[in-house]
Amino acid sequence: MASNIKCIGVLTSGGDAPGMNAAIRAVTRAAIFNGIRVKGIYKGYRGLIAGDVVEFKTDSVSNIIQRGGTILKTARCDEFKTIEGRKVAYETMTREGINALVVIGGDGSLTGANIFANEYNIPIVGLPGTIDNDLNGTDVTIGYDTALNTIMEAVDKIRDTATSHERLFFIEVMGRNCGYLALNSAIAAGAEAAIIPEISIEKDQLAELIEQGFRKSKNSSMVLVTESEVTGGALKLAERVKNEYPQYDVRVSILGHLQRGGSPSAQDRILASRMGVAAIQAFLEDQRNVMIGIRENEIDYVPFQRAIKKEREISEELLEVLRISSI
Amino acid sequence: MASNIKCIGVLTSGGDAPGMNAAIRAVTRAAIFNGIRVKGIYKGYRGLIAGDVVEFKTDSVSNIIQRGGTILKTARCDEFKTIEGRKVAYETMTREGINALVVIGGDGSLTGANIFANEYNIPIVGLPGTIDNDLNGTDVTIGYDTALNTIMEAVDKIRDTATSHERLFFIEVMGRNCGYLALNSAIAAGAEAAIIPEISIEKDQLAELIEQGFRKSKNSSMVLVTESEVTGGALKLAERVKNEYPQYDVRVSILGHLQRGGSPSAQDRILASRMGVAAIQAFLEDQRNVMIGIRENEIDYVPFQRAIKKEREISEELLEVLRISSI
Amino acid sequence: MASNIKCIGVLTSGGDAPGMNAAIRAVTRAAIFNGIRVKGIYKGYRGLIAGDVVEFKTDSVSNIIQRGGTILKTARCDEFKTIEGRKVAYETMTREGINALVVIGGDGSLTGANIFANEYNIPIVGLPGTIDNDLNGTDVTIGYDTALNTIMEAVDKIRDTATSHERLFFIEVMGRNCGYLALNSAIAAGAEAAIIPEISIEKDQLAELIEQGFRKSKNSSMVLVTESEVTGGALKLAERVKNEYPQYDVRVSILGHLQRGGSPSAQDRILASRMGVAAIQAFLEDQRNVMIGIRENEIDYVPFQRAIKKEREISEELLEVLRISSI
Amino acid sequence: MASNIKCIGVLTSGGDAPGMNAAIRAVTRAAIFNGIRVKGIYKGYRGLIAGDVVEFKTDSVSNIIQRGGTILKTARCDEFKTIEGRKVAYETMTREGINALVVIGGDGSLTGANIFANEYNIPIVGLPGTIDNDLNGTDVTIGYDTALNTIMEAVDKIRDTATSHERLFFIEVMGRNCGYLALNSAIAAGAEAAIIPEISIEKDQLAELIEQGFRKSKNSSMVLVTESEVTGGALKLAERVKNEYPQYDVRVSILGHLQRGGSPSAQDRILASRMGVAAIQAFLEDQRNVMIGIRENEIDYVPFQRAIKKEREISEELLEVLRISSI
Repeated sequence: MASNIKCIGVLTSGGDAPGMNAAIRAVTRAAIFNGIRVKGIYKGYRGLIAGDVVEFKTDSVSNIIQRGGTILKTARCDEFKTIEGRKVAYETMTREGINALVVIGGDGSLTGANIFANEYNIPIVGLPGTIDNDLNGTDVTIGYDTALNTIMEAVDKIRDTATSHERLFFIEVMGRNCGYLALNSAIAAGAEAAIIPEISIEKDQLAELIEQGFRKSKNSSMVLVTESEVTGGALKLAERVKNEYPQYDVRVSILGHLQRGGSPSAQDRILASRMGVAAIQAFLEDQRNVMIGIRENEIDYVPFQRAIKKEREISEELLEVLRISSI
Repeated sequence: MASNIKCIGVLTSGGDAPGMNAAIRAVTRAAIFNGIRVKGIYKGYRGLIAGDVVEFKTDSVSNIIQRGGTILKTARCDEFKTIEGRKVAYETMTREGINALVVIGGDGSLTGANIFANEYNIPIVGLPGTIDNDLNGTDVTIGYDTALNTIMEAVDKIRDTATSHERLFFIEVMGRNCGYLALNSAIAAGAEAAIIPEISIEKDQLAELIEQGFRKSKNSSMVLVTESEVTGGALKLAERVKNEYPQYDVRVSILGHLQRGGSPSAQDRILASRMGVAAIQAFLEDQRNVMIGIRENEIDYVPFQRAIKKEREISEELLEVLRISSI
Repeated sequence: MASNIKCIGVLTSGGDAPGMNAAIRAVTRAAIFNGIRVKGIYKGYRGLIAGDVVEFKTDSVSNIIQRGGTILKTARCDEFKTIEGRKVAYETMTREGINALVVIGGDGSLTGANIFANEYNIPIVGLPGTIDNDLNGTDVTIGYDTALNTIMEAVDKIRDTATSHERLFFIEVMGRNCGYLALNSAIAAGAEAAIIPEISIEKDQLAELIEQGFRKSKNSSMVLVTESEVTGGALKLAERVKNEYPQYDVRVSILGHLQRGGSPSAQDRILASRMGVAAIQAFLEDQRNVMIGIRENEIDYVPFQRAIKKEREISEELLEVLRISSI
Repeated sequence: MASNIKCIGVLTSGGDAPGMNAAIRAVTRAAIFNGIRVKGIYKGYRGLIAGDVVEFKTDSVSNIIQRGGTILKTARCDEFKTIEGRKVAYETMTREGINALVVIGGDGSLTGANIFANEYNIPIVGLPGTIDNDLNGTDVTIGYDTALNTIMEAVDKIRDTATSHERLFFIEVMGRNCGYLALNSAIAAGAEAAIIPEISIEKDQLAELIEQGFRKSKNSSMVLVTESEVTGGALKLAERVKNEYPQYDVRVSILGHLQRGGSPSAQDRILASRMGVAAIQAFLEDQRNVMIGIRENEIDYVPFQRAIKKEREISEELLEVLRISSI
């Protein structure tokens, strides 16, 4: 029963994402608002194992909503993938009097949460914190909107300098196996095309683009590319162009780590605040082992197994919008 | 039948909103993609009356997706509210060979479109372009997300300077009779409260806030206020505080016109691109006299009458999120 | 002799300015680098009186260079203007073992520093921290460049929305009795004119502008106005236009407190870092009771009396550049 | 004599730089203000050869001060390096009635201007437009301040994500043989070190850094690296670290083309406006074959030969500031 939860722990795990601080703030304050104590766990599961834990008060999370990164820091932790590691983590919880966990992270983090929750019968609520927007059961993840704007602003700058030469720019963005970020930023930045894993796995997008003569004009073209083994990434594509289509003057830009940083956008702060409040509400409703999702602008509880199942599909409508709006 | 549409006109009307250029670009290219000619009409209905019309090609809309404002300019037009005005507008359409219109604007503009469409049996599709997010039948309007981010960034700056004095800041934002912008920007900026028309009309929010002792700490409080007769606006609230609660050191900031400007956010550019493509698709499907909406992340056709009916309600969940996350 | 300084105190005072944190960081690290201890004094002179003092280590100032505001907070302090107040302040220094002070602030703060230094024979070095750029003996002050960019970006946004109506915008900016900020931001933003104290005191700038028919075109004009009794401020000017030149449709925007906030610009961070290092160097060279200035891109030591003397003149060249480039 | 100049041509050449549009605007308006006609020449010297020339009026340059890139476009042009190419360029000038040129660009562009001016006895004034700040005779070049801020903001974002792993980041920035941009952005971004050509040519900076144990803490270090054969660039340095210092977890970020883009900063817009007005003033004073420089905040005329001579030295003071402020 909910009344059993006297103290929660909160941690961020995996790759960091803008908005994680807003989520930490909302979780902390919603818990305190409901009479539940809060302990911040540093560096994700690694800190849970190491006992790197500090009690949080209302003003521990003051003035952080606007900051990128995560004040709790984050880490990837192989030890938590072992039975022994999780045992030590559980001991930390017992020792610290932590009855339940809020885990903010991507699918790896939620997979770990799912195992841990089942193994020790711990109530855990997950928040989807990843710029890749690759979780199932939520329309959007914390960090995605900021990353999208960051990429768009970078591409805006590249276009400023790219209007006088007959150049083909490959701009590589994050996303792992998910082309969502590349496709949406291509639309937002007015780029000519996106080369994304979901399509690349089926056909040779580069050949198709070039055969369709997509560079009718003399001006530069910009193509967003998901960093992925399937697409090959921007460097391999550029190599192919040099060999197969030497008529093009090709340039590469790999946006890299700056995509994860920056002050979160309004949407990410609001999303993180809503989800943080909802996480505590979930505990009060005796929910456990669910990820907080947003569907149709409403809060939803998504069982971990469903959240981490890979089944997001690329939107045919968005592909069409990119094709048409870039003619 | 759709095949009758050989040429569309596109105009922006009413208060401008970031993303209007992205919408113009998508409408233009989607029309040309489908073999339909496009004429840009300058300064809204006023230009339609005055015959201020230029044919648009694909590259008429190059390099505009990232710009604030509207390349078609906009105006409010009393003449179009008269039968005579609309008659002249219709004559322009006939003379220019324009068979259908895409109108990008807020509820006043769509109200005008509705009357005009019925009077002359013209196919018109509307796009919701307004920072106020006060249209019915769409989760979000073009310009709203950018305005939200602009306000949030301004409030972030105000907070930087506001941490050492025991001050109460009233920050006035746009929204007319709709508190959506104030409430969401208060959450995003980590402000303490929002005074909005939907609530103010029922009770004295200022008195309630002060009675609840919402300024427990010595640091500054920031309250977002919708510019509106109902709320009184920031200046009147500050006046009341000086008279009724002289213990507070009160400051006012009226964000004003800068809220309408700026390069559109990723979300607004994507929304505008999707809606622009959908407007032409609507004509192809023989739709008319509908506004393009987004519901549950899907394109929807919303009859004008429904779009302009005032029935948006303020979200209880968001009010709760603000209350809790600002403790 | 320099070797007597074992421990310095650092404080920020008066209106805050972006870059103050970068200055605190550089002062702290340069002191520690040279074997001098550092104590951070909170809330300016008020904290010196109250004993609100904390020892700073190298990592006390980690990750602050990019933040607006000041981690030491700031305050205005009437008590320090009294002999009694300064006596208590001196007692704090003795008790805390602070041998010397670095004061970061504007002319009021440096005036106080000058009196205090003379009264108690304390070595003090000042850093010019004010967005107004109104100190003598330095080409530029910490915070000025950021404020200039903040204003410019706000005016850029206002222009986005201001191109379709025949409007006259008065945009009020900070600066007190110094038009430097208004004049430079008018040039940077492509505004039509600046109404500034140095000129307003001599002649009726508004009448002159209107008589010269400065609004040849039908588009909006933007006029930057220094908030000042001499100019009257934007609201009074707008009132005059309504009465005397009713042919103009006038709008007012008062930028207000957001001008003081925001992440500091590159120039401000570099300036603050250089000045912070130079402050410690000054102590090592047995300098005291000087403000660090930058002249011709070189560090300079400016005696307090000279720094706070009002003799900055407005640049005729800049006035000419504004006049010509806005035709 | 100045009165012989009835019409000037203006062009941008070489790599583009933010602020070039502000310079074009000021040149155009200052010329017209002084009764001189203006012709815009597209794509630099290539357009001068090809006759790609359009007359500019006052409003040809409206609403461009805030835009990145250059409305005149730019190109590198090998043909202009030949006697035949310059002969055709001169014929264009004669045919178009252009008596004098304003050339906005870097040292390659000014070198070409110098040869052309001497060969045909044409009055030419140059404006230093390059992000590299590598011209002699001016404290700063148009575009440098914007690029510095762009780099700093990118590094700010990288730092957000870089605080939890023991990583060494090499961030590669532009600058060719000039470390000015890397050194200043390292200070501004709070990075740990800068590897720059002026120093690398003398000693092994990487070895020195590592030997000095510059990564005392467990947190990430960021090192700015000038893209240059002398430094090796970020990728080669990372390769060396992997081989020679395998204890470090190294990451690379190459900022690339985005450094050239973006809306110009206030300083760049003001600088470009001042220099544009000064270029016309120079013609009026019968100056020719000079670059407009800024020294000690005053306009200066710098003979081309001096401007393009490589003799800028790296500032020992800035190196010291970086060393001290990053401890």
